Amino acid sequence: MSRLPRLPRSSRSLTEILIGPPLETAAAAHQSISKKVGLAVFASDALSSTAYATQEILLILALAGAGAFSLSIPIALAIAVLLLVLTVSYRQTIHAYPSGGGAYIVSRDNLGETAAQVAAAALLTDYILTVAVSISSGVDQIVSAVPALLAWRIELAVVMVLIMAVINLRGVKESGRIFAVPTYIFLGSMALTLIVGFVRWATGELNVLVDAPPLMETAVAPLTAFLVLRAFSSGCTALTGVEAISNGIPAFEEPRSRNAATTLTWMSIILGSIFISITFLAHHIGATPSETETVISQLGRAVWGRGWGQVGLLAATTLILIMAANTSFADFPRLAALAATDGFLPRQLAYRGSRLVFSWGISFLAGMAIFLLIILRANTSRLIPLYAIGVFLSFTLSQSGMVLRWLKVGQLKPGETGHSAHGTTLSADSQWRTKMIVNGIGGLLTAVVMIVFAVTKFRDGAWFVVILIPALVMVFLSIHRHYQRVASQLSLGDVVIAPHASNVKTILLVDDVHAGTLRLVNFALSMGQPWEAVHVAIDPEKTERLKQKWAARIGQGELRILPSPYRSIAGPLRDYLLSLREEDPRLFIHLLLGQLAMPRFWEQLLHRNTNLLLDLVLRDIDRVIVTSIPYQISLRDQYLARLHQESKAGEMTDNN
Amino acid sequence: MSRLPRLPRSSRSLTEILIGPPLETAAAAHQSISKKVGLAVFASDALSSTAYATQEILLILALAGAGAFSLSIPIALAIAVLLLVLTVSYRQTIHAYPSGGGAYIVSRDNLGETAAQVAAAALLTDYILTVAVSISSGVDQIVSAVPALLAWRIELAVVMVLIMAVINLRGVKESGRIFAVPTYIFLGSMALTLIVGFVRWATGELNVLVDAPPLMETAVAPLTAFLVLRAFSSGCTALTGVEAISNGIPAFEEPRSRNAATTLTWMSIILGSIFISITFLAHHIGATPSETETVISQLGRAVWGRGWGQVGLLAATTLILIMAANTSFADFPRLAALAATDGFLPRQLAYRGSRLVFSWGISFLAGMAIFLLIILRANTSRLIPLYAIGVFLSFTLSQSGMVLRWLKVGQLKPGETGHSAHGTTLSADSQWRTKMIVNGIGGLLTAVVMIVFAVTKFRDGAWFVVILIPALVMVFLSIHRHYQRVASQLSLGDVVIAPHASNVKTILLVDDVHAGTLRLVNFALSMGQPWEAVHVAIDPEKTERLKQKWAARIGQGELRILPSPYRSIAGPLRDYLLSLREEDPRLFIHLLLGQLAMPRFWEQLLHRNTNLLLDLVLRDIDRVIVTSIPYQISLRDQYLARLHQESKAGEMTDNN
Repeated sequence: MSRLPRLPRSSRSLTEILIGPPLETAAAAHQSISKKVGLAVFASDALSSTAYATQEILLILALAGAGAFSLSIPIALAIAVLLLVLTVSYRQTIHAYPSGGGAYIVSRDNLGETAAQVAAAALLTDYILTVAVSISSGVDQIVSAVPALLAWRIELAVVMVLIMAVINLRGVKESGRIFAVPTYIFLGSMALTLIVGFVRWATGELNVLVDAPPLMETAVAPLTAFLVLRAFSSGCTALTGVEAISNGIPAFEEPRSRNAATTLTWMSIILGSIFISITFLAHHIGATPSETETVISQLGRAVWGRGWGQVGLLAATTLILIMAANTSFADFPRLAALAATDGFLPRQLAYRGSRLVFSWGISFLAGMAIFLLIILRANTSRLIPLYAIGVFLSFTLSQSGMVLRWLKVGQLKPGETGHSAHGTTLSADSQWRTKMIVNGIGGLLTAVVMIVFAVTKFRDGAWFVVILIPALVMVFLSIHRHYQRVASQLSLGDVVIAPHASNVKTILLVDDVHAGTLRLVNFALSMGQPWEAVHVAIDPEKTERLKQKWAARIGQGELRILPSPYRSIAGPLRDYLLSLREEDPRLFIHLLLGQLAMPRFWEQLLHRNTNLLLDLVLRDIDRVIVTSIPYQISLRDQYLARLHQESKAGEMTDNN
Repeated sequence: MSRLPRLPRSSRSLTEILIGPPLETAAAAHQSISKKVGLAVFASDALSSTAYATQEILLILALAGAGAFSLSIPIALAIAVLLLVLTVSYRQTIHAYPSGGGAYIVSRDNLGETAAQVAAAALLTDYILTVAVSISSGVDQIVSAVPALLAWRIELAVVMVLIMAVINLRGVKESGRIFAVPTYIFLGSMALTLIVGFVRWATGELNVLVDAPPLMETAVAPLTAFLVLRAFSSGCTALTGVEAISNGIPAFEEPRSRNAATTLTWMSIILGSIFISITFLAHHIGATPSETETVISQLGRAVWGRGWGQVGLLAATTLILIMAANTSFADFPRLAALAATDGFLPRQLAYRGSRLVFSWGISFLAGMAIFLLIILRANTSRLIPLYAIGVFLSFTLSQSGMVLRWLKVGQLKPGETGHSAHGTTLSADSQWRTKMIVNGIGGLLTAVVMIVFAVTKFRDGAWFVVILIPALVMVFLSIHRHYQRVASQLSLGDVVIAPHASNVKTILLVDDVHAGTLRLVNFALSMGQPWEAVHVAIDPEKTERLKQKWAARIGQGELRILPSPYRSIAGPLRDYLLSLREEDPRLFIHLLLGQLAMPRFWEQLLHRNTNLLLDLVLRDIDRVIVTSIPYQISLRDQYLARLHQESKAGEMTDNN
């Protein structure tokens, strides 16, 4: 008996080394955070996008030649205006949904299930892309500091995602104070770099980089309005992550909504300032978009010279990009679990693993992000066209939902309360018209940006997202229909049916006569139902040997031979079982298969494991029940000894 | 009943579209071929290596500058001498093993099992590399003709391997005459090119290429003896495939051995002439090794100019490279099946699929070749260092085996016969000393080349093969030990044990009460053994609901609740079953699980499928038998109607 629990314990310990011992259900807890910590926790996604947004604008403008780079400043200002509108708009959402107002919840509450599924598809797609873009941009920063790693970009990115997946499978207290540190390190070093940069610019000391890296693309295009719009839509990636606070309102200290709204305002001001400043200084130092050195690295080099100042800035930027990717590891599984609970995603996504985290969601997110990183070679600029459509689509849905909500609020008399479609409380608000217009402008602007994005990036990859999101919505709706159908088909309804017995016929599938076969026969005898043995004849010599062995060793029960000219086991067996069923449709057919259970996994692979195949091929036949009788090869000596005893005991019983 | 066979039929038809309808076992046939066809069938592997061997020599010499290119001619001559020795040597093997004398068989027959496994590891590795190298060189030729495909190298190579895998899964009559066509097309167009080339050279019309492609590598190394040896070992890839005829002797018309030996001589003469001619002309036209244009393409261009002549030569070369890869698709599965029958490889490799081919071997070969092509980016020069070590190792083993064989033959008196270790017949031979010396020289030279290859290519990738082959041998021997151990443990020996019955306790694992649960209870009742229901409590509310439903709907049998603080189903269940076993070690525990059987695969994935997990976690416990009771969700209406009837029938029986 001492060897018995070995297999599961050893497999469990490997998991435990990676993700830690299991946690009790009761260990789930909640924590409230201050505005300062909240800023750090929820701003990393938004702030980190300044690491690539300017570069992506320049990359498009570069097509029209370096002379077009000066357009980056008006483009950045236009994006800042958009940020302002979004901030005002989202402050209203935060006040309306104090228990969390992500795009999925707001859409479900005001626009109905289908819109909610569109939001879910858009958000889930973008969480995957946030991981891919942030990590590949993080690798860009690392490679800028250590060019020798250039050849290992993809490997580096994949390893980083894998490490994050393991950390998140262990479970992270997402609102822990430790998460605040990287954000503030980034803010500190970026602020210092920008301030020193501006002072040196004002005193005329900030020079154009002498050894700027070569331009990424050499193709030349005319400077059209379309090109400017392409550059603008690339820059809009700076706004990804702005919605994070509206998801995380419940984590804030009371008064939650007010604290969250204030934090959003701070975050937007910081984000806008950093983005405009980087774009401004990048233009003045003549930074060029390049595959070997990021704009942030060029900026650091212009301000601090080659050395620790530049490396420090790159390290801080990499750190906040990793934090941004990490927020997706919290958000994706949470949203997937929410949609799974609503029955639109596979139910497994709603189960908490041994560490209380949504293990399936984390693993799926990591797998998809790694897939994208490998396919698009961890190239930030190739990932960008896939990104941001989903973000702006969810912005639009969320703001449109708010517009409908204000319309309903407008129908209430002063002091009166009502309910939304999904049951949240509506209170009368005299300013509902103004608020509706604010959200309306937000929804309209984000819709326009989304369309600009989809059109201008269509050929670069946006087409894929334009197809993917409706396809995902269709999948989600199919899953929902499936679960509804299964539930209705499993329901016993009002028909009262008493449990009752039927006849059982036991069939033993026999390939050879050995110790495992003996166990098969013993089990059949123990069940006490009528039984017969069946052999599928593939090799005539083997069949002949089997008949002799059966007579010599078993010596009871019928051995039926099924011919199989095409060497298939499943085919003739299936036909035979179907013929039995036709004879008596009420019969339970109990098929017993021998299975050699090996102590180690690789040893199991060395055997044919027919039982898995047969289980699959026969599972659609009503009232056919397949049972594998394992014979533990490693327990053979104990087993034979016991068999021997029992056989004696059996004989004694027979004699009595 | 009409819907019943749907699942397997639809899945079978997809396979049938790809690989065709199943073939009867009796359809296996044999075909004899003439020398001309035999040359075409077995020479493609050897002849095709002229497509890259010269280029690989030049590639190494290029490191010492273009001035070193003239060394390619003496190197090619040295390789031709090696070819001569090998041919004489292998003619002797062909006469000694008329029923096929591959390295595996010769080693097993004369050097013992371990040497045979070394040969198997070397050959299997090289079959995979033959596919990878031939296909990537084939893609090189295609890209030389159509430079626009340069960016699609890897995709092209992968698709070609996949197509070959499907064709071979369908089954190919390997000795069919149709296989002769590509070889003769290649021989014709190559001979024409070389003859025209020589004529133009003799008349002084063959000019140095004006627009030769740029050199692949720019690094410069001194021209050392080591570099020359590296170039020599690269060129030795020309000799891969020479052994093919010795494997295929049984396919020849009688007198088999003589016909095969004559074919080998023809093949070697052709191979040597083509290889030396290509190398000579390539030097005279100033061909350079390049990533964008093969040496064959440059030769075609120099002789025919840009146009159909060059394209025709490239097409013929691509064709024979594909044929060479195809020989591996015949040889790899056949050798793997042979080793599997001997118990050194997983047994599945010896099963013939529905089309009578060794499907597992074909699929594994294709998978590994694709893996290599992706990892090494379908780059012929990066694959070459992995190649040829195995070929020369198998040459050495085969020749050493022959030396030992002659030693044994030498001990026989004139006219006497004897037997080798593995049972082949030895006949006295007065010339045994000469023959032993010939094979000895062959074995020694190939051993030296193998060592030169391993040392000079060590850092470029040969290290991997040097580790891989011993590792594979260890794996093969472990597999053999495993099968031997299992066979001895399954053996019933002389102990006579009569089949006999034991007590059975049935446990129903219950999660909810629905139509599937009712079936579970009905089956337990039908078995007529003592039973109880068990529920693992993860969610307290759900457990409470279950208790009520159980009482209302089932109303019989005990419902035991097992607490599970860590949300695991398997853990508490396992502990409970172990405790039952301790109470009565002779008890069979029959665990019944409900399983929702969905009509479509994707629908199955939407459910938790706990049964697969439990089967895995519980299979190591002696005398615990797990049965999944499928409930076919799509048959629900028929099922409920029948249940209702039966329930009435059951009540009637109860009343009687």
